[in-house]
Amino acid sequence: MRLANRIAHITGGGDDGWEIYYRTRALEQAGEAVINLTIGEHDVKTDRVILDAMHASALSGNTGYAFGPGNRALRAAVADRFAARTGAPTTWENIVITPGGQAALFATHMALLDAGDRGLFCDPYYATYPGTIRATGAIAVPVPTRPESAFHPEAAEIAARAAGARTLLINTPNNPTGTVYSRATLEEVARAVTEHDLWLISDEVYDSQVWDGTHVSPRALPGMAGRTITVGSMSKSHAMTGSRLGWIVAPVPVAEAVTTLATSTTYGVAPFVQDAALFALRQGDAFEDRIAAPFRRRRQIALDRLTGANRVRPIPAQGAMYVMLDIRDTGLSGEAFALRLLEEERIAVMPGESFGRAAAGHVRIAMTVEDAAFADALSRLAAFADRVSD
Amino acid sequence: MRLANRIAHITGGGDDGWEIYYRTRALEQAGEAVINLTIGEHDVKTDRVILDAMHASALSGNTGYAFGPGNRALRAAVADRFAARTGAPTTWENIVITPGGQAALFATHMALLDAGDRGLFCDPYYATYPGTIRATGAIAVPVPTRPESAFHPEAAEIAARAAGARTLLINTPNNPTGTVYSRATLEEVARAVTEHDLWLISDEVYDSQVWDGTHVSPRALPGMAGRTITVGSMSKSHAMTGSRLGWIVAPVPVAEAVTTLATSTTYGVAPFVQDAALFALRQGDAFEDRIAAPFRRRRQIALDRLTGANRVRPIPAQGAMYVMLDIRDTGLSGEAFALRLLEEERIAVMPGESFGRAAAGHVRIAMTVEDAAFADALSRLAAFADRVSD
Repeated sequence: MRLANRIAHITGGGDDGWEIYYRTRALEQAGEAVINLTIGEHDVKTDRVILDAMHASALSGNTGYAFGPGNRALRAAVADRFAARTGAPTTWENIVITPGGQAALFATHMALLDAGDRGLFCDPYYATYPGTIRATGAIAVPVPTRPESAFHPEAAEIAARAAGARTLLINTPNNPTGTVYSRATLEEVARAVTEHDLWLISDEVYDSQVWDGTHVSPRALPGMAGRTITVGSMSKSHAMTGSRLGWIVAPVPVAEAVTTLATSTTYGVAPFVQDAALFALRQGDAFEDRIAAPFRRRRQIALDRLTGANRVRPIPAQGAMYVMLDIRDTGLSGEAFALRLLEEERIAVMPGESFGRAAAGHVRIAMTVEDAAFADALSRLAAFADRVSD
Repeated sequence: MRLANRIAHITGGGDDGWEIYYRTRALEQAGEAVINLTIGEHDVKTDRVILDAMHASALSGNTGYAFGPGNRALRAAVADRFAARTGAPTTWENIVITPGGQAALFATHMALLDAGDRGLFCDPYYATYPGTIRATGAIAVPVPTRPESAFHPEAAEIAARAAGARTLLINTPNNPTGTVYSRATLEEVARAVTEHDLWLISDEVYDSQVWDGTHVSPRALPGMAGRTITVGSMSKSHAMTGSRLGWIVAPVPVAEAVTTLATSTTYGVAPFVQDAALFALRQGDAFEDRIAAPFRRRRQIALDRLTGANRVRPIPAQGAMYVMLDIRDTGLSGEAFALRLLEEERIAVMPGESFGRAAAGHVRIAMTVEDAAFADALSRLAAFADRVSD
């Protein structure tokens, strides 16, 4: 029997470029020691105080349906955090709680794209972006960015693909590139989406991980609050990846549309998980800084170990838990580099090609192993790059 | 700026018939005592042993990403439970864990319907059904059933709407009617969907609440496993409504499609919630029987109080946590009956019209208050029906 065309459409029929990830897992399961720098997940678990708050909420009876846009107190806490960090006036009415940041990305695109519409996204991109747009029945259109511009989006490239488009998805701080969009870049993006009357969907799940410069949210730019939807999550800021709690910050009509959609798609988020998130947010910035601290340290380790390397050049590493390396001077593709590095050094990194064409000739390093092992892996990677260069 | 057409399409532009629910909530918030028989939620909380298992799992480190189709052990436990209850051979490969039964309903329709396809569902229906079908961009088509046939679906009505349809959604034990489809009914449905080459989506979330007869799953009927997707959940069977854990039981290609979709829509289910569900399933049938017991008692109370009533006639109450009453002899619509009952007796029931045209002239009673209050409410309801009859 026949499935919806949507399903084949989601995968796009292409190779997903994640062989290296599966090969790494196979080696690990076979008992081989691999330094795994592929996946963006903390090397710490969710803090016990948050889990205890979750349990206390459940034991106190918060175990029933919680459908709708989320608990008022949590929505207010998310709004307050967002307003404090970005300067954009935001209230609880702008917030809808979702079961994770990915669910927020999907719900937003579902609320804004119909089948056959075009949804733009910047290349290189987080792995789920094109599938998320395609799952709505829309056409996913990559907007290329260039390593020479630190992979920041450019107005001309947006304009060239704006015909028939309704949305543009950006991500700052950026996965996979580790860059943070400057105010100038975001103003350029804002002009382009305004001129072409696009919605701007801004994935800001790494907003607590900024090492250089300042996180700017396009919602805070003049005239942009009415056409910008920000996606946020507890995953990266509070090491709560498994709890699946995210949100959107949106104009009220979009928040209402996403709430309507939630009745058909998720029927709300576990109330005790919402209470755990509220507890975690109330721990304040110091808690978030503590979760971000290992990545801040390791980013400095990466700069120390790689500055002056002959054949690898780090893209400016300003935020998020990744460093992107330009390895084109080795003469290898990102895929070939990553595969040989895994086979010869048992170090696993993601080929840039896994994140789109724009990142060909690059590899992404997740800073998710402890400092000494991370430092050693980078030194061996640099030596490997010298050795394999033609 | 313009939202996706999908959003207006979801609500269908119609009145949702839930005024009585909101009016009840307003009265309760104003401090009025109302016997609330509107919502299908247990009057007990999730059992502490389950919450403790959840906490223990989280404390042991199960707090990271759990993307994909769900933990193998939980999928196997769901498969074993389903096979034991229905006799249909089922393995872990047939199971995908979802964040709730509603998410399972949505994912299944997304995997099977493209924009513009027709998705059938039986009327009367659970409130989210038409919106769930419409959220995919498909056209939601009600298949009327008749009180004279205890609201069981009939082949002729399915056949009359099969042109252009790809799916039929049924629900047994049934919300809102409290009936359980017989084997003969399901065989008739099976013949109709086979003849018209439809997928059959069977919502069986009330499978632990059967008071008369036997729960039959269409997946167990000859030739039906390849075209049937069953939706299940921990919500009703284990009083875990807030935990948001459901599943599908499906042919492997559909399970794989729903897993592909999950990468774009939910990115998995919290691992500690999955572990809590596994713990709960391992408590066995005795646990489920204990959760179902109050509804079993109250269904008997309802029969005792309503048999011999002059103006209200219960639809055969065989399962689920509801009794549906035919109140047409009062001369009132379901809505008028429910509104006057609320105003004059402070008893809240749902008008049949909230669940579709087929249930006009009926009201649904949720058996979700303690026995003595429930018995008293039914006696007052029967006396009210006598009083208001013309």
